[in-house]
Amino acid sequence: MKVGIINVTGYAGMELARILHRHPEVEIAAVTGRSAAGRRLAEMFPHLESCDMEITPEITESVDFVFSALPHAASAEKLEPFIEQGVKAVDISADFRLKNLDDYSYWYKIDHPCPQYMETAVYGLPELHRDEIAQTSLVGNPGCYPSAAVLALAPAVAAGIIEPDVVVDAKSGVSGAGRGGSVDLNFSEVNENFKAYALDGHRHHPEIIQELGSMDGDDDLRLTFLTHLVPMTRGILVSCYAPIKDGAIPDGEAGRERVREIYEDYYAGEPFTKAVSAPPQTKHTSGNNDCVVYPTIDLRANRLMAIACLDNLVKGAAGSGVQNMNVMCGFDETAGLEQLALYP
Amino acid sequence: MKVGIINVTGYAGMELARILHRHPEVEIAAVTGRSAAGRRLAEMFPHLESCDMEITPEITESVDFVFSALPHAASAEKLEPFIEQGVKAVDISADFRLKNLDDYSYWYKIDHPCPQYMETAVYGLPELHRDEIAQTSLVGNPGCYPSAAVLALAPAVAAGIIEPDVVVDAKSGVSGAGRGGSVDLNFSEVNENFKAYALDGHRHHPEIIQELGSMDGDDDLRLTFLTHLVPMTRGILVSCYAPIKDGAIPDGEAGRERVREIYEDYYAGEPFTKAVSAPPQTKHTSGNNDCVVYPTIDLRANRLMAIACLDNLVKGAAGSGVQNMNVMCGFDETAGLEQLALYP
Amino acid sequence: MKVGIINVTGYAGMELARILHRHPEVEIAAVTGRSAAGRRLAEMFPHLESCDMEITPEITESVDFVFSALPHAASAEKLEPFIEQGVKAVDISADFRLKNLDDYSYWYKIDHPCPQYMETAVYGLPELHRDEIAQTSLVGNPGCYPSAAVLALAPAVAAGIIEPDVVVDAKSGVSGAGRGGSVDLNFSEVNENFKAYALDGHRHHPEIIQELGSMDGDDDLRLTFLTHLVPMTRGILVSCYAPIKDGAIPDGEAGRERVREIYEDYYAGEPFTKAVSAPPQTKHTSGNNDCVVYPTIDLRANRLMAIACLDNLVKGAAGSGVQNMNVMCGFDETAGLEQLALYP
Amino acid sequence: MKVGIINVTGYAGMELARILHRHPEVEIAAVTGRSAAGRRLAEMFPHLESCDMEITPEITESVDFVFSALPHAASAEKLEPFIEQGVKAVDISADFRLKNLDDYSYWYKIDHPCPQYMETAVYGLPELHRDEIAQTSLVGNPGCYPSAAVLALAPAVAAGIIEPDVVVDAKSGVSGAGRGGSVDLNFSEVNENFKAYALDGHRHHPEIIQELGSMDGDDDLRLTFLTHLVPMTRGILVSCYAPIKDGAIPDGEAGRERVREIYEDYYAGEPFTKAVSAPPQTKHTSGNNDCVVYPTIDLRANRLMAIACLDNLVKGAAGSGVQNMNVMCGFDETAGLEQLALYP
Repeated sequence: MKVGIINVTGYAGMELARILHRHPEVEIAAVTGRSAAGRRLAEMFPHLESCDMEITPEITESVDFVFSALPHAASAEKLEPFIEQGVKAVDISADFRLKNLDDYSYWYKIDHPCPQYMETAVYGLPELHRDEIAQTSLVGNPGCYPSAAVLALAPAVAAGIIEPDVVVDAKSGVSGAGRGGSVDLNFSEVNENFKAYALDGHRHHPEIIQELGSMDGDDDLRLTFLTHLVPMTRGILVSCYAPIKDGAIPDGEAGRERVREIYEDYYAGEPFTKAVSAPPQTKHTSGNNDCVVYPTIDLRANRLMAIACLDNLVKGAAGSGVQNMNVMCGFDETAGLEQLALYP
Repeated sequence: MKVGIINVTGYAGMELARILHRHPEVEIAAVTGRSAAGRRLAEMFPHLESCDMEITPEITESVDFVFSALPHAASAEKLEPFIEQGVKAVDISADFRLKNLDDYSYWYKIDHPCPQYMETAVYGLPELHRDEIAQTSLVGNPGCYPSAAVLALAPAVAAGIIEPDVVVDAKSGVSGAGRGGSVDLNFSEVNENFKAYALDGHRHHPEIIQELGSMDGDDDLRLTFLTHLVPMTRGILVSCYAPIKDGAIPDGEAGRERVREIYEDYYAGEPFTKAVSAPPQTKHTSGNNDCVVYPTIDLRANRLMAIACLDNLVKGAAGSGVQNMNVMCGFDETAGLEQLALYP
Repeated sequence: MKVGIINVTGYAGMELARILHRHPEVEIAAVTGRSAAGRRLAEMFPHLESCDMEITPEITESVDFVFSALPHAASAEKLEPFIEQGVKAVDISADFRLKNLDDYSYWYKIDHPCPQYMETAVYGLPELHRDEIAQTSLVGNPGCYPSAAVLALAPAVAAGIIEPDVVVDAKSGVSGAGRGGSVDLNFSEVNENFKAYALDGHRHHPEIIQELGSMDGDDDLRLTFLTHLVPMTRGILVSCYAPIKDGAIPDGEAGRERVREIYEDYYAGEPFTKAVSAPPQTKHTSGNNDCVVYPTIDLRANRLMAIACLDNLVKGAAGSGVQNMNVMCGFDETAGLEQLALYP
Repeated sequence: MKVGIINVTGYAGMELARILHRHPEVEIAAVTGRSAAGRRLAEMFPHLESCDMEITPEITESVDFVFSALPHAASAEKLEPFIEQGVKAVDISADFRLKNLDDYSYWYKIDHPCPQYMETAVYGLPELHRDEIAQTSLVGNPGCYPSAAVLALAPAVAAGIIEPDVVVDAKSGVSGAGRGGSVDLNFSEVNENFKAYALDGHRHHPEIIQELGSMDGDDDLRLTFLTHLVPMTRGILVSCYAPIKDGAIPDGEAGRERVREIYEDYYAGEPFTKAVSAPPQTKHTSGNNDCVVYPTIDLRANRLMAIACLDNLVKGAAGSGVQNMNVMCGFDETAGLEQLALYP
């Protein structure tokens, strides 16, 4: 299958190239860039030397599948002709994630460039929407934070064991901010430093509400979502807190056991998302497509604590994009994604 | 004034030496170590070359003031003779922090070595207990996490604007784990990694309850306190969450303003703890004794978010120890602590 | 083919497991550990969850091939029975590298445990000894530093263009020091720090002499080899300096061109070692088996500068071990080693 | 004394503010910036909160002393009026370092903006030029790399014990590249990465030649100077290599002893530069004005190895600038610079 990657020059695009280059069912037919058009992939990114090709301004070859790793708005615009032609597509940007177009306008300060496709588009979290993904030709790939937060909380929400009153304290490595040049991302500013950011609200907020709120059947999820920057390159860890509903589970250790069962059952059979029995670390998922979730109860406060880790560039972006492609195309869901994490 | 440092060879002890060496009122008269006894301070720690002296197994010289940076239990035992003789003391360990001896036994798995001094001992947070510190001869220096968490929440608790239902999501640099050799602290395990730890409860939990619970007048604080390890050496940031009490403050931006005023008033005149108007970063306090606190409201969830940063080895340990000494001895409270943070 | 890994619990052993688990020709039949015997691989190393098995004190199953990742001396002892039985082996330790047993005794402060196998043993650098490796049943896998230094200099030495007067200034990430617990490896000591170490000589010194000296035909190589510790986990970069022999190459840019050709010719056809035309970075090889070499001339001083980068745990240890196995067993030399580097 | 800082918004300028704010003889009267003009210092740099003032486009107040931390060329232009008026000045840029104007034009690709001051200007390394610095009104502050390299080699060159055939392998933290926004400095590109850069020559090359060549009395120093980027914020370490002159010192350990004596004698009495007896680490100088030098001999190759460490922003920039001011103004040379290094 011939695949095109729109905007290969950001971190998500680079990761798509890295993963797809080794994918058994796929040939990378075209990669595009904006300022980098005309250069060789291997010259810009020596680690991609074995998948060298020219970066072009547009995809001109015929392709069977297309990924876009452009920023929002630009992404939908570039994808539109492919969608029109019926080429299957995964959009890594935010353009096809939010069902509520007012939310989109509010958070992204722009009117949606092609609202007509929002009905076809499926939110690309296979753990929640595998069947719809298999049927659609357009997937809005989840944000990196919502991937972690929704997977951390979905089993508890689905089981109805927590109050709709949730704090998601999220921590991300710096690659989530992209391959840009700005003083704020300068090594000397980030290294040996830790901070909270986006204290007035992060654009990934409405995705978490959309996915968990709809699951619960009511929209009144009282969510506080705060993001932090960790001086590391890859990895997201979210710590999620919510009061246990009165009587929903047994007291004490038995309740913890019950929560673990709920999570294990929920993710039984999932190829990448796993409920684990020891607190995870981001490095356990470095470079691979896993999401590991650890649920427990703070017995002193009768509060669920659910920790999830993933690699923001893999399960949080390019890897889940490929997973979605696999589901959409009927390939083995793990094809191209079997790599173990790099540790240490 | 002649000062002794018991156990100069850990990070808190080293910082005490670094700070006291430049203190205008103080002469370091003796420093002790255990396995390092007999060695020179400058040989072990070249950055302390200008304050070189022999590390001895015990303080044999007469001293006017003593710091202990030993682990708990060992600390109280070594301090006992000095307390007996009326030598003023600051204990950096946990031994003289908890008023409730059952809490001490529960969390530290040992009976308190000298419970008779718990009545004299004052919890060494000058922002809350300056007058008592000025009167006492024995201070239990706060833990690094509680320093940050209590300072982040005290103004809101004192003002009665939050429900007693608090989540403290705390993140610390690695030096908080001490100058030990263990696989878990090996650079290769910690670097490019982020994790939660102590999910069954952290020993600093009861300090937070003690200080905030007593302030509120009731003991029913429902506290979830979760600690995380950041791949950096110095710095603590705590993100604290609590529901705003119905009607306690105005809605919307006016409420945010009100919260800021409450915090600014509470810390007006404090030499080191400051309510700031932009979200702080740990590096803003690297190497100095500041604690910077940023309060705001998550208007979507009507929840207080209070962020506090400090250097765990300075305001979280040695620096606040020296601040306490200054208060106890009637020195200028900032003496020896005027150093600006090192940035970047 | 059934493979055993002796001492899977160090970083080299873990990497062997990670790589061999995905190797198409191989099944991991047994993994051993010392203090970890009896535990599950996945429990100790969650990133190896998909290759879970019990860690045993000894290999009791019959195996066709064995790797040892034990420290020197212990390694030869454990390998001896396998060698005796004719099982092919790659030793990651230093035991089967040095042809000169006096060198071994001098540098490792111990008599060689089984000198009788030194004649069979081949130094496992396929770029220099591929044919002998294909014929032998015992390979001494090169040290991480010599892998980089020898590959950086071999083309120039073989072409006779440099004086036998070489400085190798080598820099390594911390994982080269192993998965140990010691204060010197504590994150807080290593982070934001850079140092030279082993100023009286590093054990990898004689390997470099052995490989480059023998190549030159004379043993008078005047080598200064100094090692440094970089605050990063993976990666080695060596900067090698040597005077250009008078008249050996043209002056100016033409000389630089000539050197580039010499290197490109030397490594033409090599699957993993490449002469590159832009200065490499360690991260270009993170997690994969490449060694990238950049030669140039400092025209002001008429001195060769050759830079080489590799991942110390892959091409510097486990990856080259598997490459050697592939050569020894007639597999495709790149089998199991096709993974691209992880960047960023 | 009223002092102005031109361009306070880069890292060197920020460090000048940090150090001068605590200097007993000095009041900061004006700080300038370009794009930041009109903003408050404390708003941009919260760690400078206690030295808050407005950033202005120009120094309009009358000042007694001026520092410029502008880039080269712009720096000389802005300093010219002050020099004209006889205001004493330290230029942190490269404009007043090189005596040879052709070298300046060659390396900086620009004609010198005010060559007429080159005769007055003194190269600001007090260890070599203290008396001239005390007499001048204009100091060209050394580059960070030359500070380390010259101090590492000066004693050996002065004593005539090495051949004029030197390799300086230099490693720097990222703050040396300044407070800029560029992809190359993005945390994700630098972290867990190590590289050599400026392989065609670094602008600091001619400073090293100027200072060491002139010392030796002959200009034929064959210098290879290669720079590397370390994933840390502060610190420079240089490893310098040069053949020992035949017969210049005794063989073996006695020669090492002799070298140590030469270095200790050379730096006896120096307030900041010290010959040390154990290999130094960059962190031993973090945040303070020390330069620590460790000389030894590689007895196998009869080669001097001299290691020097300093903080590139302090002894490599702002700290040595203040040291020069102290010498120029007859203050205690250590005034404002007594701070111990921050470790860990």
